[in-house]
Amino acid sequence: MLSFDVIILGGGPGGITAARVLAHGGKSVALVEDAHWGGACLNCGCIPTKMLLGAVAPQALLRAQQRVHVVKGSAEVDYTALQDRISRFIKGSGRTLAENLMEMGVALFEGHGFGIAPGRIRLEGANGNTDLAAEYIILACGTSPASFPDLAPDGDCVLNSTGLLRLAEAPESLIIVGAGAIGIELGDFFAAMGGKVTVIEAAPHIAPLEDADVAKELLRALNKNGIVCQEGVRAKSLGTVGGRARLTLENGKVITAAKALVAVGRAPNTGNLDAEKLGCVLDRCGYVTTNAFLEAAQGIYAVGDINGMALLAHAAGHQAAYAAARILGETDREYAAGPVPSCIYGGTEIMRVGRTAEALLKEGKTVEVSRAPLAMNPIAQAGGGCAGFVKVVWDQGSIAGIAAVGAGVSHLVTVAQLLMKHGYEEQKLRQVMFAHPTLDEIIPLAIRAPKTRFSA
Amino acid sequence: MLSFDVIILGGGPGGITAARVLAHGGKSVALVEDAHWGGACLNCGCIPTKMLLGAVAPQALLRAQQRVHVVKGSAEVDYTALQDRISRFIKGSGRTLAENLMEMGVALFEGHGFGIAPGRIRLEGANGNTDLAAEYIILACGTSPASFPDLAPDGDCVLNSTGLLRLAEAPESLIIVGAGAIGIELGDFFAAMGGKVTVIEAAPHIAPLEDADVAKELLRALNKNGIVCQEGVRAKSLGTVGGRARLTLENGKVITAAKALVAVGRAPNTGNLDAEKLGCVLDRCGYVTTNAFLEAAQGIYAVGDINGMALLAHAAGHQAAYAAARILGETDREYAAGPVPSCIYGGTEIMRVGRTAEALLKEGKTVEVSRAPLAMNPIAQAGGGCAGFVKVVWDQGSIAGIAAVGAGVSHLVTVAQLLMKHGYEEQKLRQVMFAHPTLDEIIPLAIRAPKTRFSA
Repeated sequence: MLSFDVIILGGGPGGITAARVLAHGGKSVALVEDAHWGGACLNCGCIPTKMLLGAVAPQALLRAQQRVHVVKGSAEVDYTALQDRISRFIKGSGRTLAENLMEMGVALFEGHGFGIAPGRIRLEGANGNTDLAAEYIILACGTSPASFPDLAPDGDCVLNSTGLLRLAEAPESLIIVGAGAIGIELGDFFAAMGGKVTVIEAAPHIAPLEDADVAKELLRALNKNGIVCQEGVRAKSLGTVGGRARLTLENGKVITAAKALVAVGRAPNTGNLDAEKLGCVLDRCGYVTTNAFLEAAQGIYAVGDINGMALLAHAAGHQAAYAAARILGETDREYAAGPVPSCIYGGTEIMRVGRTAEALLKEGKTVEVSRAPLAMNPIAQAGGGCAGFVKVVWDQGSIAGIAAVGAGVSHLVTVAQLLMKHGYEEQKLRQVMFAHPTLDEIIPLAIRAPKTRFSA
Repeated sequence: MLSFDVIILGGGPGGITAARVLAHGGKSVALVEDAHWGGACLNCGCIPTKMLLGAVAPQALLRAQQRVHVVKGSAEVDYTALQDRISRFIKGSGRTLAENLMEMGVALFEGHGFGIAPGRIRLEGANGNTDLAAEYIILACGTSPASFPDLAPDGDCVLNSTGLLRLAEAPESLIIVGAGAIGIELGDFFAAMGGKVTVIEAAPHIAPLEDADVAKELLRALNKNGIVCQEGVRAKSLGTVGGRARLTLENGKVITAAKALVAVGRAPNTGNLDAEKLGCVLDRCGYVTTNAFLEAAQGIYAVGDINGMALLAHAAGHQAAYAAARILGETDREYAAGPVPSCIYGGTEIMRVGRTAEALLKEGKTVEVSRAPLAMNPIAQAGGGCAGFVKVVWDQGSIAGIAAVGAGVSHLVTVAQLLMKHGYEEQKLRQVMFAHPTLDEIIPLAIRAPKTRFSA
C-alpha cells in the first residue's frame, strides 16, 4: 500500500491541472492514467482535429479569396505526412507533459485504477496490482465516444472519432451521424480532403447546442463546400455491408459510403471505475454526481467530463484547479464556472460564451438580441470570407451570451468572455480602446447595435 | 456664417467618432473633410494595407504548412483585381460612412477648413468659401507621410505610402526607407508578390518602437521570406535616376530598385490649418499641443494624430469619444488612454499593449520579464508556423506590457489588453476559463512563466 496526500485518476486536462496545482502547493500526488498522458483531448480529441483543420486552413483562405476573384491557387494536403506529424506531436507532447509532472514530484502510474474502498484505489498495471491510499481522491477519468445499439462502431467501415482519426487513408466518402462539434469538424476536414460527406443530425438543426441562426449560417457554409446535411432525421441502423458503410434512416432511406463516423455524443468512463466503492453516486447516464463544491463524496472530487457538467477540456482544467485549491485550503466558495466559452473549428467557425436566446426563452424569459454582420469588419473583408455575424443575447439589460459564426471567429471567444465577465455594456465599452483594424472590433459593434425583443 | 454647436475638422476615425457621439448627444455638428471620408486610415493607411495582406495570407499559411511538409500548393494574386476590389471597398465604405453621418443629422462639408479667429472656421470648398462658427471646435486633421530633404518622393520612382498603394503594377524590386509598421507591412506584401525588397532602418532595429527581442524574431521571419533588412543604417539621398530608384546610404553604398518607398514617419496636417488663429499652440514638429483634457485652447480640442500622442486610428477614436463626452458634459476627468494596443500585420505579426522592457529600463526602472514560445500552443502548431513568443513585462509585480511576435498574434491584442487592464496576474488568472485549444492560451502561459529580472 502506497500512501499519498492525493490520488488523481485520469491524466487528461483535468487530472494534469489538478496534479500541477497540488504538487506546486506541496502535496504528495499520485496520478494514474490507463491509456495515454494528455487524455482524450491530446490523443484523440481537440488537438488532432485542430491539426487536421490547420492543414486545410490554407485551402479555406484560398477559397475565400477565390470567391472575390483576387487569388488563384491550389493546396494539396499530404495525408500521410499530416498523420505522421500529428502522431509525432501527440507523442512528444504526452512525453513532455509526463516529464514535467515528474519534475514537479508527481508520482505517475500507468494502468487502470478503480475504487476498492473509501480512500483506496487499486491499480492494475503491466507489472501487477498495487494499492494506493490517500486522504483525497480526484476522479478525472473523462468520457469516451458513445454509441447506441444498431449504431455501434464495428471496427470495419463504421468508426467512432478515435477510429476515424487513425485511418491510413482519407475516405472518398463519409457518412457522419451526429452534427455536434466532433461531427462538424471531422466532416469539414474530410470534405476539404475531397471526400463526399453526408451529415445526419436528429435534432432540428446541426450544432444542436448552438443558436439556431448561428447553426443556419454554418449550414450554408458547409453546403457551399459540398457537405450534405440532413437535419431532424434519425438514424435507424448502421453497419458494414459489402465493404461499405450502410446507414438506414428512420424514414427508410439508405445511404452508403466508404466509411461512417458515429459522433452521437460521449459517455462517462465510469464503467470499470467502481466509484460506488469510494462512496460516489452515479446518475442514470453513468456520470458521477457532485455537490456545489464538486465533491462526489467525503474527500472525493469529480472534475471534467466525468461529472457531466460541461464536456470541454478547458472546463475540466478550470474545475480541477478549483478542486485542487479546495484541497489546499485556498477557497471555501462554491465552484463558479463563469461564462463558459466553446468553439467549433473549421473553415467556418462558431464561438459562444454564455447562453443562447433559445435556452433563455425556454426558461420563459424575455430576451433582447443585437447583432453585427462580419461584413462590417475590415479584417473579415481582408480575408475575403465575410459571411457570418456576431449575436449578443441580453437578459434584463445585461449580456447573457455572445455567439459568432464565420471565418476565424474562434479568435473572438476570449475577448467576448472577458467583455461579458466584466459587464462591458454600452457606456462602459468606451473605456476600452479596441485596436483598429482587428476582428475583435466586431464585438463592440454587435453590443452597441439596436436590440430586438423576443418573448417566450 | 453658419453656426453649429461643434465644428469638427477631419473626417477620419477621430472626426467621425466625435461626430457620431455628439450627434447622438443632440448637438448640431459640422464635419469638414478636405480629401476623402474615412481619412488616411480608410483611404491610404490601415485598411488598404490589411486588404493587400489578406490577399497574400493564403500564401503565408501555405508556406508554413510547406515547411512542415504537410501541404503543397501555390497561390497567385491577381494584383489588378485586388486593386479594383480595394478601391471599390474604400469607395463603398466612405460613402456608407458619410450617409450614416448624414442620417444622424451631421452636416458634412467637403473642402479645406482653417482657423480665422477663435470659434471661427473658413471653409474653401468647390463652390467658394463659407464661414462656420461654433462654441466648440475639434481638430482631427491627422497626419500625412513625412519626408526629409534628399528623401522626398518625386512622384516618379520614389513614392510615399499613398503613392505606392496606387501603383498599377507590383514593382519587381522595392527599396523601403523606414521599417516602422508601414514599411514592414508594405514590404511583406510586395515580397509576397515576388518583388525583391530591401528595407533600410536608421534605428538599431526594425520596428523601432517595439521590443528588441520581438523585432529580432520579426527580422528572422522577414529574412526567411527573402526580405533584406539593413538596420542602423542611414539613408543619405534617394531619387530617380535613369528610370530607377537610386538610394545612397551614409556609408556610401548604393542600392537601386524599380521603386522606392519613403516611410520615415508621418507629419501633422497643420501646415495650412491656421490653428494659431483659433488660439492653439503648435510644438516644434507642428503638432497641436493640448492639456490633460485634450484641450488645445478654450473650446478647442485636438484629437488623434494631430496632437502627436499616438499615431493610431484607434487612439484617435478613443480620444474623440472622450472629447465629445466632455463637450456633452458627461465627464470632467482627465483623458486616460489605458494600455494602448498596437499591431504590425503580415505573415509574421507583432502585437503590443503597454510598455516595452527597454522603455522602462531607460526610465531607470528594474523590470521582470516572463515569456512563452508559440511552439507551446497547439493552435500555433496546427498552423504550422510556430516561431515566435509572447513576452510579459512586469513593473513592481504588475503587468506593464505584453508583446507578441509570430503568425496571427494580432488576434491576441485585445485579450492581452483586457487581461492587463483588469490586473490578471497569477492568482486572479485562475478565474478565467480560457477556451482550449485557442491561441489565446499562450498569454496566461507567458504570464505564469518564471520571471527574469533586469536592471537599468
